[in-house]
Amino acid sequence: MEKIILDSDPGHDDAMAIILALGNPNIDLLGVTTVGGNHSLEKVTYNARAILEKAHANHIPVHRGCGHPLLRPLTIADYAHGETGLDGVELPEPTRELDEGHAVNWIIDTIMSNEPNTITLVPIGPLTNIAMAVRMEPRIVDRVKQVVLMGGGYHVGNASAVAEFNIKCDPEAAHIVFSQSWKITMVGLDVTHQALCTPEIQSKIDNLGTDLAKFASGLMDFFRKAYQNNQDFIDPPVHDPCTVAYLIDPSVISTRRCPVDVETHGTLTDGMTVADLRGPEPSEEDCNTQVAVSLDFNKFWDLIIDAIKRIN
Amino acid sequence: MEKIILDSDPGHDDAMAIILALGNPNIDLLGVTTVGGNHSLEKVTYNARAILEKAHANHIPVHRGCGHPLLRPLTIADYAHGETGLDGVELPEPTRELDEGHAVNWIIDTIMSNEPNTITLVPIGPLTNIAMAVRMEPRIVDRVKQVVLMGGGYHVGNASAVAEFNIKCDPEAAHIVFSQSWKITMVGLDVTHQALCTPEIQSKIDNLGTDLAKFASGLMDFFRKAYQNNQDFIDPPVHDPCTVAYLIDPSVISTRRCPVDVETHGTLTDGMTVADLRGPEPSEEDCNTQVAVSLDFNKFWDLIIDAIKRIN
Amino acid sequence: MEKIILDSDPGHDDAMAIILALGNPNIDLLGVTTVGGNHSLEKVTYNARAILEKAHANHIPVHRGCGHPLLRPLTIADYAHGETGLDGVELPEPTRELDEGHAVNWIIDTIMSNEPNTITLVPIGPLTNIAMAVRMEPRIVDRVKQVVLMGGGYHVGNASAVAEFNIKCDPEAAHIVFSQSWKITMVGLDVTHQALCTPEIQSKIDNLGTDLAKFASGLMDFFRKAYQNNQDFIDPPVHDPCTVAYLIDPSVISTRRCPVDVETHGTLTDGMTVADLRGPEPSEEDCNTQVAVSLDFNKFWDLIIDAIKRIN
Amino acid sequence: MEKIILDSDPGHDDAMAIILALGNPNIDLLGVTTVGGNHSLEKVTYNARAILEKAHANHIPVHRGCGHPLLRPLTIADYAHGETGLDGVELPEPTRELDEGHAVNWIIDTIMSNEPNTITLVPIGPLTNIAMAVRMEPRIVDRVKQVVLMGGGYHVGNASAVAEFNIKCDPEAAHIVFSQSWKITMVGLDVTHQALCTPEIQSKIDNLGTDLAKFASGLMDFFRKAYQNNQDFIDPPVHDPCTVAYLIDPSVISTRRCPVDVETHGTLTDGMTVADLRGPEPSEEDCNTQVAVSLDFNKFWDLIIDAIKRIN
Repeated sequence: MEKIILDSDPGHDDAMAIILALGNPNIDLLGVTTVGGNHSLEKVTYNARAILEKAHANHIPVHRGCGHPLLRPLTIADYAHGETGLDGVELPEPTRELDEGHAVNWIIDTIMSNEPNTITLVPIGPLTNIAMAVRMEPRIVDRVKQVVLMGGGYHVGNASAVAEFNIKCDPEAAHIVFSQSWKITMVGLDVTHQALCTPEIQSKIDNLGTDLAKFASGLMDFFRKAYQNNQDFIDPPVHDPCTVAYLIDPSVISTRRCPVDVETHGTLTDGMTVADLRGPEPSEEDCNTQVAVSLDFNKFWDLIIDAIKRIN
Repeated sequence: MEKIILDSDPGHDDAMAIILALGNPNIDLLGVTTVGGNHSLEKVTYNARAILEKAHANHIPVHRGCGHPLLRPLTIADYAHGETGLDGVELPEPTRELDEGHAVNWIIDTIMSNEPNTITLVPIGPLTNIAMAVRMEPRIVDRVKQVVLMGGGYHVGNASAVAEFNIKCDPEAAHIVFSQSWKITMVGLDVTHQALCTPEIQSKIDNLGTDLAKFASGLMDFFRKAYQNNQDFIDPPVHDPCTVAYLIDPSVISTRRCPVDVETHGTLTDGMTVADLRGPEPSEEDCNTQVAVSLDFNKFWDLIIDAIKRIN
Repeated sequence: MEKIILDSDPGHDDAMAIILALGNPNIDLLGVTTVGGNHSLEKVTYNARAILEKAHANHIPVHRGCGHPLLRPLTIADYAHGETGLDGVELPEPTRELDEGHAVNWIIDTIMSNEPNTITLVPIGPLTNIAMAVRMEPRIVDRVKQVVLMGGGYHVGNASAVAEFNIKCDPEAAHIVFSQSWKITMVGLDVTHQALCTPEIQSKIDNLGTDLAKFASGLMDFFRKAYQNNQDFIDPPVHDPCTVAYLIDPSVISTRRCPVDVETHGTLTDGMTVADLRGPEPSEEDCNTQVAVSLDFNKFWDLIIDAIKRIN
Repeated sequence: MEKIILDSDPGHDDAMAIILALGNPNIDLLGVTTVGGNHSLEKVTYNARAILEKAHANHIPVHRGCGHPLLRPLTIADYAHGETGLDGVELPEPTRELDEGHAVNWIIDTIMSNEPNTITLVPIGPLTNIAMAVRMEPRIVDRVKQVVLMGGGYHVGNASAVAEFNIKCDPEAAHIVFSQSWKITMVGLDVTHQALCTPEIQSKIDNLGTDLAKFASGLMDFFRKAYQNNQDFIDPPVHDPCTVAYLIDPSVISTRRCPVDVETHGTLTDGMTVADLRGPEPSEEDCNTQVAVSLDFNKFWDLIIDAIKRIN
């Protein structure tokens, strides 16, 4: 049973990650924290609450975090997620009030008040909140179990030729996160571009016939069109739940250990996650970072479908 | 009566700023917050508490803040402040416990719980805490009265040819602070290098004969030697209290409005406060930043000496 | 019959490129120009002359070029090429005097005095000379037929995690070259790391039994050891002749058109050739740059062996 | 008798520098070389030839140099110099053909063929040609007598808050020039902003009554208006001839030795000449660069007026 904090900016694929975390029996979702990214902090925070409402998960707290990257202006991805950040579906009104306490403080308090080595951070948006938490309370670095994040890519970008959206949104925050000594698994575009919601997969979701399945399918309809219109994809890559899937079953994603850092000064490479893949794979003692390399497509989607089914 | 928060990294001249704030009847020192800079967070936090103890000011809370600049490794100034950060004097054991609550949260809570436009932030160390507070709670920007900071310089540097220590310590934090819409007065080296503790001034302090005067004089003895050994000064420039003096009596320092921003990418100019002094002085509506230009030496030291005398 | 100028810094694999250019009937080598890179300008210029002497090619002029990158200090690769830049073989004393005239001027004069669209530039070292020539006489850009260069890589580096030696040596020169409108084929590490001199290949060279074959084999012996000791290779990648092979027979190397530029400001990515491989392949009208993708190993080595045999 | 090469981009104040060099008996003007800067290479080269024609100096060769900065796009100053680069006067048709040979080659050849330590380089435009010459033939650095350049400023900018036009036009070239071991005097805005053509001065020029005086006065009329419209000056600062005046009589300008380098990576400070003025003035052995500090206004203008008179 993995205790996780989902730090997110929902977003269509964030919604799928939340659903997977809620619907899988091996994940204990302690809370959702929000960060400006796919859309403004206000909208993604509302979306997080509405998704939990939709998934009958009113017991999960939502804490609002940072709406502005450390140094850069916020650039949102409304081309991918629409005007609400979750275009294409109808959202229920959240009945649970937004929880008090800033996400950064709640992340720190949760980590420091739980047993060491029990909490996994799962950031699936820009890394602003996590970086802020590190600077506010550096002891969290030794205390978390690991960080499994969606972001970056060692051979591919989307926000630029070589940079991925979440990282490019706040490269300085990402640099802080990657510079810490905690165990990090970077689930980047190299793998998430394999997590395509094909028509076959979507039919399986549709066949579940539940309200939540319809909701998920609606998300995928919009996401497909957005990716077709903006990024030369036929089927949409469902990035964020890859992190949760990896936590549920590490065999879903193969990984390679290698040093990773984030470029914060490049003219062409700003926000690139630079992985050093030269030479043999280093040992776990020598290297605390690893990158996701390939996805077991069927296992991944089986987990998603199973989670949708279980919730309802 | 100016309500101020002193965000500091004591430090010999920080100690003089605290003494001036405590000893002047027009300043209401709400609390001291600490930040890694002149020395490690641990040492400067201890020093802040010990200075307050020495000055019979146990009622003033001290909140510990960030020990690490946003992006850079911490570079301390032990060449100027010695091994303890306050070498040259004996410090009393603080009797008041360190206050709970992170400096960043305390700064935010204090600003948000006081009336708008009543709190002046007086940062006299690296700007890490203030930048973190802005990112955690952007509403503080509209709510503070003003920011009067020691740092930078438009024509002179000390940490490099063109950068001052506090700003160069955390240029990204400084860039965040200078990019906000609040009213900022930058009291930089252009003026603080005029705030020299000459032998004549030090004699006046000595002549007060009190325990606190001896303490202040001991600080100045060490500071003089440090500046003689490291920076080609005969008398030490007592930077930090210039900010408080300006708040007590704006006629102590003349200023000029001009745009100011902080270089964060230069090879030679990293951490430089770039002031645009071309053309005529802009209006207050067009420009929220101003730089200190010259010091009324006698008024400044009269305020300091008066404060030492009043405390006892 | 391709008229080429080889701009080089010999170097073991440069020697193989010169030999291929000399020994293949479809290449008309107009001259060799030299540039500081693998070793100092003095040594590589001597090496160029000695290689031509060894290959009975005294009719080919050698012009000395720039010994210093545009902005950076020269970093040589003596770890790969030894103390002379051609360690492992004995070099004959060159009998032809070094030709007069700076390489940059000779390149310009040669291009401007030949028919338009007839000269191919083949830079196989840092791009300093070529960039200088562009700035001295911008009209060469429209007048050359194409540029086929060894350097860079879109998914791999050697001088750093993401930068190749020739480009990283003088990233500003490379940026100038890649910013021009001429047709450029970048033959980078993605392909040259496939051009391995395996024991089987080397046996074939040895079996030629000629003096030049022994010379080539001696080069490969040293190069193998250097790569084993420094870069975790079993067999050495023979980078530079891939360019000439591509000119002789384009089917040796498959390519993909894509925008390419060079990072000159990155902390981690300095000297990276950033190729934008997103989306469909652009048309030749829209994109003047292409990158080498894969090598026909057998065709490549057949060309090399044939050239050695023909020279004698 | 100082043998000088004027490397220039005329330009109103360049014209005054050429006139001063021609009209003063202590200056031996070997030639004028041109560089893109105030206006395009084509226009400034024409202007150089036309100014020489106007000043009866057909014996002086003009060599065309680089039209494009090393790395940046060319930014011209037509706001200061008008559409022709010399608006406000009528130019005679040059009767001497443009000399053959690229400026960079001519500079190198002239330096290398004259006795060591006899040639002074006087760059009064962007430093592209000089930097190119250094990279083509590094031996010129030891062979010139000195470099006296117009550019930069240690406390003031015009192209930005802290950068001067000539340097900001090609910061990388300037960095190359300032990084060499030759003796450099930087005559920057700190001094040239004192070289104002006041109405009193212009009356004196007018009173000369000659054709060349009318030409010079016409230049100043246009330049005054341009500076009034663009840079909040009442009288125009006549930058470029300050260099020649200093060579004629060093007492015209006081100087201070200090390290100087050029920022090439700053967001706000790109192209800034960073002078380190901390501590005592270094010795000539320790420091090969000096900056101009103040101008003897009357001596300066007396030299200019005398030169106009002598030419005719």
